[in-house]
Amino acid sequence: MEHLTNQSIQTQFEQYLQSASDQDKEILSSILTNLQQKKDTSGSYLSALIKMETKSFANKQLEITIPINPIIHNSLDIVHGGITATLADSTMGTLVHRLLPEHQTAVTTNLSVQYIRPGKGSHLSCTASVTHQGKQLCVTEARVVDDRGKLVATANGTFMVIAKSK
Amino acid sequence: MEHLTNQSIQTQFEQYLQSASDQDKEILSSILTNLQQKKDTSGSYLSALIKMETKSFANKQLEITIPINPIIHNSLDIVHGGITATLADSTMGTLVHRLLPEHQTAVTTNLSVQYIRPGKGSHLSCTASVTHQGKQLCVTEARVVDDRGKLVATANGTFMVIAKSK
Amino acid sequence: MEHLTNQSIQTQFEQYLQSASDQDKEILSSILTNLQQKKDTSGSYLSALIKMETKSFANKQLEITIPINPIIHNSLDIVHGGITATLADSTMGTLVHRLLPEHQTAVTTNLSVQYIRPGKGSHLSCTASVTHQGKQLCVTEARVVDDRGKLVATANGTFMVIAKSK
Amino acid sequence: MEHLTNQSIQTQFEQYLQSASDQDKEILSSILTNLQQKKDTSGSYLSALIKMETKSFANKQLEITIPINPIIHNSLDIVHGGITATLADSTMGTLVHRLLPEHQTAVTTNLSVQYIRPGKGSHLSCTASVTHQGKQLCVTEARVVDDRGKLVATANGTFMVIAKSK
Repeated sequence: MEHLTNQSIQTQFEQYLQSASDQDKEILSSILTNLQQKKDTSGSYLSALIKMETKSFANKQLEITIPINPIIHNSLDIVHGGITATLADSTMGTLVHRLLPEHQTAVTTNLSVQYIRPGKGSHLSCTASVTHQGKQLCVTEARVVDDRGKLVATANGTFMVIAKSK
Repeated sequence: MEHLTNQSIQTQFEQYLQSASDQDKEILSSILTNLQQKKDTSGSYLSALIKMETKSFANKQLEITIPINPIIHNSLDIVHGGITATLADSTMGTLVHRLLPEHQTAVTTNLSVQYIRPGKGSHLSCTASVTHQGKQLCVTEARVVDDRGKLVATANGTFMVIAKSK
Repeated sequence: MEHLTNQSIQTQFEQYLQSASDQDKEILSSILTNLQQKKDTSGSYLSALIKMETKSFANKQLEITIPINPIIHNSLDIVHGGITATLADSTMGTLVHRLLPEHQTAVTTNLSVQYIRPGKGSHLSCTASVTHQGKQLCVTEARVVDDRGKLVATANGTFMVIAKSK
Repeated sequence: MEHLTNQSIQTQFEQYLQSASDQDKEILSSILTNLQQKKDTSGSYLSALIKMETKSFANKQLEITIPINPIIHNSLDIVHGGITATLADSTMGTLVHRLLPEHQTAVTTNLSVQYIRPGKGSHLSCTASVTHQGKQLCVTEARVVDDRGKLVATANGTFMVIAKSK
């Protein structure tokens, strides 16, 4: 991969800003804020971009939230169903990962999402719980609600336990 | 929402660049490239960010691809399962949308994904087809393959047909 | 369809009994008991054969049980996964039906089952609850437990509301 | 379990026949025919009762059919969704079992069914194929059609490979 100079990125940045709408600018500002925060944490770029935040972890339950903004809208201006699925998958996967011993992790084998109503408001909150923790498979479920507590989606995830690669 | 000045975004940008790693810079450059391209199209920010491209649409089948890069990796450095789900949901949803008459669109009611192997290589390609097109519900299925044609995931989506809001 | 005489069925019955094992006889006796009880109720032959019994219906929840016996075993001598699915589908479907007004009923559009552990013991009990009751679609979930309260499976069902045909 | 005498079953049988409708008699006759045939095969009582027949097995595909009759109807007089699920689960499970070496078998971990249209006509035919055969998990899919070849349902099954108990 070619090496990028600060100068070339600066040029890209200025070009983008030149013809950017107000919404374009807000989106870019959000992205820069979220990526800046990522530097201090160990998460992925994706979780940084959509600003996933782990709110609580107790009693084999885990909660992750994301703010709703145009970055995650679909073409109908509601939260993209794939982002709701991403939030659910991440919340269930993070929960499973935290319950496993140090040397193990888990990958999703099956994910199903039932969509109830459009994701609207200030943020989405997903709470995952463990249905069954087996030696090979972990079965989990999750509920996604909006900022008024209204149910947006339910999800089920099955995860296969694997050895962590070093 | 407050009005953002070019100056304030410029400051954010410079701050980010100051302590950015090479990978951080590549990611930011990709994001700027993808968002710049969005200005010429009607898609969503999300589809722009992950660079979804519709490759073909014929015989009630539709194909969308995304490049694989660190933006869409999970913490294990393989494609995030939520992005695979997003790609499948978008491909099936776009297909349904194109098959419907002008005044109608559709929203996902059920999405299920079976994950087969890690998403690796240069890109993922998803092909969706219609299992059943009813008046109220459309049932679709999709296959996601990597750049060698290896199966990464299969998916099923059920969509409810609704009137397009103006 | 040809008309069956009591005599021809009696002959079939005697032939079967002649070479029947003890288990064969127990199965046949169970079937006769279950079919006899069906005469007094409005259910289907299938629900009679596997002896589905509605135990409770309150607070938008409904519970149905079935006894475990060799009729519903698979070739591994545990409850056939299809019967667990049948129990879950019936419990969720019956619940939806009871919540709808007189002139409506509902058909399953999506059913997903996560199997946790083998169905063993004296009976299975399934409790269904409503996740969302919409005008067109009802989303439900269910848990199947064994006689010790151990979780055997979880299930999700989506039902489309239709007008009852007369 | 108490030992059943031929005499006690004969009494049950006569009682049932006394007040049986024509349909009751046809059902009982079918059950006796199906159970009689089971004596010559190694299948389960359940597969005998609904008369599952393996039609073909080639190229990692397997087909099983069942006749449609009132035994498998729901209260709306169409094939019970649970029976469609049972047929799909059995077809996918039998396929996986046949592809595994002698000392292994497999149990269903996830089953999802998308229902397209009511099961009507003379019989249902289910064809299963293998999406992915892994060491721990096998992913399969199936299509259920009626006697005119019309699609009734699609299904997905994930199976966990286990050692066969002796």
